[in-house]
Amino acid sequence: MAHQLDGADALLMVGASDRNADLFYATRFSAPDPFVFLWTAGEKIILANSLEIDRARDQARVDRVLPYAQYEKRAKHSGKQLPSARDVLVELLRDLGLQKLQVAAEFPLGTADFLRREGLELTVAEDPLFPQRRIKDGDEIAAVRRAMQATEAGMETAIESIRAADVRDNTLFLDGEVLTSERLRRMVHRTLMDCGCIGQGTIIAGGDQGCDPHQVGFGPLRANETVVIDIFPRDETSGYFGDLTRTVCKGAASEEMHRLYQTVLEAQQLGLSQIRAGAAGHAIHKSIQQLFVDAGYETGEKDGFMQGFFHGTGHGLGLEIHEGPSIGKRKDTLESGHIVTMEPGLYYRGMGGVRIEDTVVVRDDGYENLTTLPKVLEV
Amino acid sequence: MAHQLDGADALLMVGASDRNADLFYATRFSAPDPFVFLWTAGEKIILANSLEIDRARDQARVDRVLPYAQYEKRAKHSGKQLPSARDVLVELLRDLGLQKLQVAAEFPLGTADFLRREGLELTVAEDPLFPQRRIKDGDEIAAVRRAMQATEAGMETAIESIRAADVRDNTLFLDGEVLTSERLRRMVHRTLMDCGCIGQGTIIAGGDQGCDPHQVGFGPLRANETVVIDIFPRDETSGYFGDLTRTVCKGAASEEMHRLYQTVLEAQQLGLSQIRAGAAGHAIHKSIQQLFVDAGYETGEKDGFMQGFFHGTGHGLGLEIHEGPSIGKRKDTLESGHIVTMEPGLYYRGMGGVRIEDTVVVRDDGYENLTTLPKVLEV
Repeated sequence: MAHQLDGADALLMVGASDRNADLFYATRFSAPDPFVFLWTAGEKIILANSLEIDRARDQARVDRVLPYAQYEKRAKHSGKQLPSARDVLVELLRDLGLQKLQVAAEFPLGTADFLRREGLELTVAEDPLFPQRRIKDGDEIAAVRRAMQATEAGMETAIESIRAADVRDNTLFLDGEVLTSERLRRMVHRTLMDCGCIGQGTIIAGGDQGCDPHQVGFGPLRANETVVIDIFPRDETSGYFGDLTRTVCKGAASEEMHRLYQTVLEAQQLGLSQIRAGAAGHAIHKSIQQLFVDAGYETGEKDGFMQGFFHGTGHGLGLEIHEGPSIGKRKDTLESGHIVTMEPGLYYRGMGGVRIEDTVVVRDDGYENLTTLPKVLEV
Repeated sequence: MAHQLDGADALLMVGASDRNADLFYATRFSAPDPFVFLWTAGEKIILANSLEIDRARDQARVDRVLPYAQYEKRAKHSGKQLPSARDVLVELLRDLGLQKLQVAAEFPLGTADFLRREGLELTVAEDPLFPQRRIKDGDEIAAVRRAMQATEAGMETAIESIRAADVRDNTLFLDGEVLTSERLRRMVHRTLMDCGCIGQGTIIAGGDQGCDPHQVGFGPLRANETVVIDIFPRDETSGYFGDLTRTVCKGAASEEMHRLYQTVLEAQQLGLSQIRAGAAGHAIHKSIQQLFVDAGYETGEKDGFMQGFFHGTGHGLGLEIHEGPSIGKRKDTLESGHIVTMEPGLYYRGMGGVRIEDTVVVRDDGYENLTTLPKVLEV
């Protein structure tokens, strides 16, 4: 992999790769604390402190690992009593003769202003920093496939528990105890863990709770209500995500719920049918908005709440749960090897929320669905 | 809580509060996607998109929640066809008459350069942005205490499993199967989950693996070796962390291991005895370095690896696992209400690693230890 420097001497990144997917992507070195990474025309370099240096030398896919302590010593020689990380960075850049630096849009302003005051030139790279990160190779597709298998196992735990539950006074009970969103979430997370994945923010939201797409859900689950279940865990070993949503109803759904569900299912099928290399994300999004309007489902604020379809149709995923390309308002074009979600939804208070989501690989002539789980409303 | 604006019209933050502890601290609004936050002399304001606005109005501890869609519309009227998030931000700042903006050192350079080109003035706030975040109130101490109880339950799972293991050919077996770092980590994470916490990066590192403080550990655990167990989960409900390290040895430890352990234990006691409001973090750190030197344990690179004591003595924790103050090289002073770890360690390949860590609240006249678990080498 090469990187477009656009006239700069090097790309400079400073961060903790556990929280910076681009930095992990460029180095394949997972670190909880910030380190410095430089990518010149000729080589990749990491500056690592004594706590990280052995592991960096062992694991990082870079050409050189330089010791922070050595440059800290040099900074002291240059007259800094207690050199800050920024002083040490300046020392390193001067030693390597790097003057023009390309940085990501997310580069921290405090460090940028410091470096500029020291006479270094910083230019912000275009977003995305690594366009190739969107295009997954065989190993990356395999990693997302494994994450999706775990995600489906988690979904089966959720759906089978709802199916197995008893109903008393309209409330779900499992093994004699109330089945709450919190309890079911914990069961799902346990399944995910058994599959080597970490679940966070898993949504199990019944009734009106499901109408707020970021509401994770709480309290007893009830019969004859839609329950939105959205699971997006991270594989601990690879760092890649899975993403999957199903909507179910314990017992009989009302006629309006059935119609809502069928409409979202049709919208998802319409969306999927358009996925192929070269397709425009916003055109897919618009076609789904139109389908909903044609079916009589309006979007907008009502009684002080957003209702209808008011989120994107899909997003890329990989080392981040949300990454490019977008299938929504933005003018992104799908390419072969992108991994994207397809997740239209409709939300009306009093009726409930429905979202159905698969995760697929974009191919030249269509897509490969990494999701195998059926779509059924009533359980 | 008030905020020092240093002559600016407002503090401006842009980020996802799930990954930006300061933003969560200021708003108490947990969001997975970026939003805009402004803190003027008079009020706190959030700009939220349609996906988040209902939840923001419900949960955020701010004075006003403004709709992104409204400012997007205004930006369109100002001639932007497809306004970017930055265009919308400029529209908002102009509408509110905010010209001089204070931002954190971590503020993204791309947005900063854009705003400056639009004529807005940005100054970087001193670090830390919210000094008061280091000082925990009663609710925050209670949250860390709960996280520590979960952490201790996780540690008990680890230690009791090692204690209960059989030894065959020097390898640990539990219930007839090899007890690996990976398997034990999963058992610990399950316990943490049952206590409402998420464990990530848990270290269970035996023998020489324990000599690399960021090595999480892999493969079969063995008898007569030190095993470093470092657990630092996050409480799902509160968002606060716990942090705890113990070192154990299955079966008999060698004399040199005993001496290593006792020296680290003495160092920890020396460190704890100095914790009180007004104490200098670097003085505590130096006293521990000196104790190790006096006991004949040298620090430095040997055979290409760092050995001895080459990390900080402790760090603050709260909404982040690592936050200020530092008990290490930096000139930080402890204050009443800080929550800090005390975790000296010694690492020598061929002998093993030993780290012992408690988490305590700094008080005027000493400290309150949030850790209750005993410290025993041989199990």
